[in-house]
Amino acid sequence: MHAHSPFTAMAQVQINLAERSYPILIGTSLLASASTYARLPKAATALVVSNTTVAPLYAVQLTEALRAHYAKVLLVSLPDGEAHKDWLTLQLIFDALLENGCDRKTVLFALGGGVVGDMTGFAAASYMRGVPFVQVPTTLLAQVDSSVGGKTAINHPLGKNMVGAFYQPQLVVCDLQVLNTLPERELSAGLAEVIKYGPIADMAFLEWIEANLGALLAREPAALAHAIRRSCEIKAEVVGQDERESGLRAILNFGHTFGHAIESGLGYGQWLHGEGVGCGMVMAAHLSQRLGRVDMDFVQRLTTLVAHAGLPVKGPVLCAQDNAGRYLELMRIDKKSEAGEIRFVVIDGPGQAAVCAAPDALVREVIDACCA
Amino acid sequence: MHAHSPFTAMAQVQINLAERSYPILIGTSLLASASTYARLPKAATALVVSNTTVAPLYAVQLTEALRAHYAKVLLVSLPDGEAHKDWLTLQLIFDALLENGCDRKTVLFALGGGVVGDMTGFAAASYMRGVPFVQVPTTLLAQVDSSVGGKTAINHPLGKNMVGAFYQPQLVVCDLQVLNTLPERELSAGLAEVIKYGPIADMAFLEWIEANLGALLAREPAALAHAIRRSCEIKAEVVGQDERESGLRAILNFGHTFGHAIESGLGYGQWLHGEGVGCGMVMAAHLSQRLGRVDMDFVQRLTTLVAHAGLPVKGPVLCAQDNAGRYLELMRIDKKSEAGEIRFVVIDGPGQAAVCAAPDALVREVIDACCA
Repeated sequence: MHAHSPFTAMAQVQINLAERSYPILIGTSLLASASTYARLPKAATALVVSNTTVAPLYAVQLTEALRAHYAKVLLVSLPDGEAHKDWLTLQLIFDALLENGCDRKTVLFALGGGVVGDMTGFAAASYMRGVPFVQVPTTLLAQVDSSVGGKTAINHPLGKNMVGAFYQPQLVVCDLQVLNTLPERELSAGLAEVIKYGPIADMAFLEWIEANLGALLAREPAALAHAIRRSCEIKAEVVGQDERESGLRAILNFGHTFGHAIESGLGYGQWLHGEGVGCGMVMAAHLSQRLGRVDMDFVQRLTTLVAHAGLPVKGPVLCAQDNAGRYLELMRIDKKSEAGEIRFVVIDGPGQAAVCAAPDALVREVIDACCA
Repeated sequence: MHAHSPFTAMAQVQINLAERSYPILIGTSLLASASTYARLPKAATALVVSNTTVAPLYAVQLTEALRAHYAKVLLVSLPDGEAHKDWLTLQLIFDALLENGCDRKTVLFALGGGVVGDMTGFAAASYMRGVPFVQVPTTLLAQVDSSVGGKTAINHPLGKNMVGAFYQPQLVVCDLQVLNTLPERELSAGLAEVIKYGPIADMAFLEWIEANLGALLAREPAALAHAIRRSCEIKAEVVGQDERESGLRAILNFGHTFGHAIESGLGYGQWLHGEGVGCGMVMAAHLSQRLGRVDMDFVQRLTTLVAHAGLPVKGPVLCAQDNAGRYLELMRIDKKSEAGEIRFVVIDGPGQAAVCAAPDALVREVIDACCA
């Protein structure tokens, strides 16, 4: 296959949500190719939203490709990092849109990781009550996680992703070549979300990850393409049954209840989201074991894989006096909580997940055993 | 009919939007009656959002009625006025929700005029990506306008309602008694949106308004109930065909293109929204006449009714040097604009509206003729 052929997608996943359906393209040479964007809604203007880390690497390639379709291509570069996932930074997108007289057909392009994707998506959902947008995720985590599900949000000082919208993109472009510039720590963080799909839905996929972890860490395009495709497929299947997270979809948050507590307890940006999820999965696996849902072999197997992927398997101590109490306090403001009761995603036998409550005493035991 | 009977609604309009359908109750003794809220989704907490003008008048009545259904009833009182329809004020709602550990089942109640309704609706659309909300509009304008259509938004320094969401309430409660405390100027502003439905959709309703203007200005409940019901019915019919404003729905913005320019050019809060719409309808009628769509008798008839309703019929001078140029500049950033071309809602023969462009020179003539 010629590198500059328009047929460079190695895989495509179609997300079926009636009139909000869209394709995820996975392959090489996608980002810089004008043909990638040929089927998008017509508009006078495109606005590329990126950050100060990613824009210098890929903004020129993307804006050049977009010039084939839009008379005006604008760029806004946000400060990088979870710490800036707030209203003040979001406002920069609205400012750019309004200062340039952008109308309600303007297409927004999110060029960056999960933070850029979440913020651009929420800006697109809210600008004039909704304009089209495209995800061009540049981290593995964003490619497997933000590609499907339409979750967009910003943080509030009192909680992560507390203000946002369910809003679907028109297209997701997962270019494998952009992963070559990804720091190792971020690659591992992305693998956390890939690994997640094994225990909750597909043990054959977990086996495949175990067998191909070396190829994934070496960023081999074929391995990455498979991992991304399978992750998106599983997520799409779950989301397709529960677009607005009323029930089933919550299983995708395996590892996230503990993970969010870690992220928020340490202050956003100390641990990467994927690191919190990696460690959170280990903690949730221990909880599942104590609830009698899986055996200790399974917990060990998952812990080993998480560690080999380069992720932490021990939680940080968030409070010297009462660490478990602090975790519980942070988990109670999780969005899955109902009337103050924490809802945990547990593994209910390998390859299957369930959402349930757990006695505080048991959760304390898990936290005490898993933190150092 | 007994005053405290649960059957106090004088009229009910059902808004049919599949799984997002909801009723509008119109009548007396609704706000303070627990039975009004009996069919809402169950939750631990209700949050009433009001403002410093309305809360002292009605917050106690509403929170008392809600206590029959919710274990915890919270109140947040925002500063009053269009000038506060911004992110900073919206943040007060999110702060209250998070400081009180409100989960995603929490029901928000908007107790106030359009500003409170728009902000509460947007907060409900965005908090944890969507919680249920109820409109309890306390101005005539909010009762006829914000009750139907699901438009929620905040302002941006560069434009009105630029950031928001389409989000439907669970219920709208139009209590006619709350209109007794409404200042005269606000009653007239509300009548502007009532009058609007005549020229765009129903000349029989226009005749009815002309015949019953005295009763409306005297706040007779039966007259108000009919005006509100018919306005909501017409709006519901239009919105039902075009929930997300892709085409037809734009006709509801009759008078709003000129009106928004006036509001924004003078600075939000100088003219009431309904005053801008009243005067804007007169200007749009003149434009319709110059485009050959209606005759001068129709323009005169509408102008007379707008004036008798207590509304301005002459536009303000926004710029001494080039007033028409300033109006055009402001109208170009209207959300209906496409690629810089202003889309006007014109009357296309009495009782029918259309959206079209118009030559700048013609629009300038209208502005010059209509401003003083």
